[in-house]
Amino acid sequence: VTSTNVLKFHHIMLPVADLDRAIDFYTRVMGMSVFSRKSFPAERTHNAMVGLGTPPVTPYFELIQDDTMTAIPKLANHVAFDIADLKTLYAALQKEGLTVKEPLAQRPDGGYGCRVYDRDGHELQLIQRGA
Amino acid sequence: VTSTNVLKFHHIMLPVADLDRAIDFYTRVMGMSVFSRKSFPAERTHNAMVGLGTPPVTPYFELIQDDTMTAIPKLANHVAFDIADLKTLYAALQKEGLTVKEPLAQRPDGGYGCRVYDRDGHELQLIQRGA
Repeated sequence: VTSTNVLKFHHIMLPVADLDRAIDFYTRVMGMSVFSRKSFPAERTHNAMVGLGTPPVTPYFELIQDDTMTAIPKLANHVAFDIADLKTLYAALQKEGLTVKEPLAQRPDGGYGCRVYDRDGHELQLIQRGA
Repeated sequence: VTSTNVLKFHHIMLPVADLDRAIDFYTRVMGMSVFSRKSFPAERTHNAMVGLGTPPVTPYFELIQDDTMTAIPKLANHVAFDIADLKTLYAALQKEGLTVKEPLAQRPDGGYGCRVYDRDGHELQLIQRGA
């Protein structure tokens, strides 16, 4: 990879148990949009690209419901976001009854941070940067 | 999240067994830069932010070597990238002896795609878009 062979993040796949439920969370609560949605009956999978911006800003999430799977594996990693006003989002997340890993707390830089699990148990780190 | 409460991807954490080895792969082979590197002796963890662009373009990878872990969990998800010239990168990946999940193949759009595992077994999807 060089300056003439440009690499760019495109998407992050998240396995989900129920695509409708996952889309509801990432759109209604997290403010994302559905860029595309497809079903593959032969493979018994359904996927949706959800993300930020219009037109779509990469990277975005590829949510995959795979009905051949009996359990949704938890992420070994996490995905982090910057957010302008975390207090407002955190209140919405609590109202949704999401499981909190680390409650809203002040950061050394004066901002705020928290960690929550989405409806499939995937860890999301949310950061409002301070000064 | 609303138009006044902007959400933005910041980083994607990848657990790694050997931070030096992971940094070598993502910088030398994938062309990323090290934006920061820190050790936390009390927690027996070492982490590095590696990514694309100067100054750093979000999102980037947070590579974490956690010496309290006995095994590196494989990702339940994958991370996808767009690349301008996949054939050149694919040749480099093969030269590195990386495990290939799906070899380089032409896509319906005339471009190319492949899936490889990084040195910690995390799946990377690489896409060169066609017409």
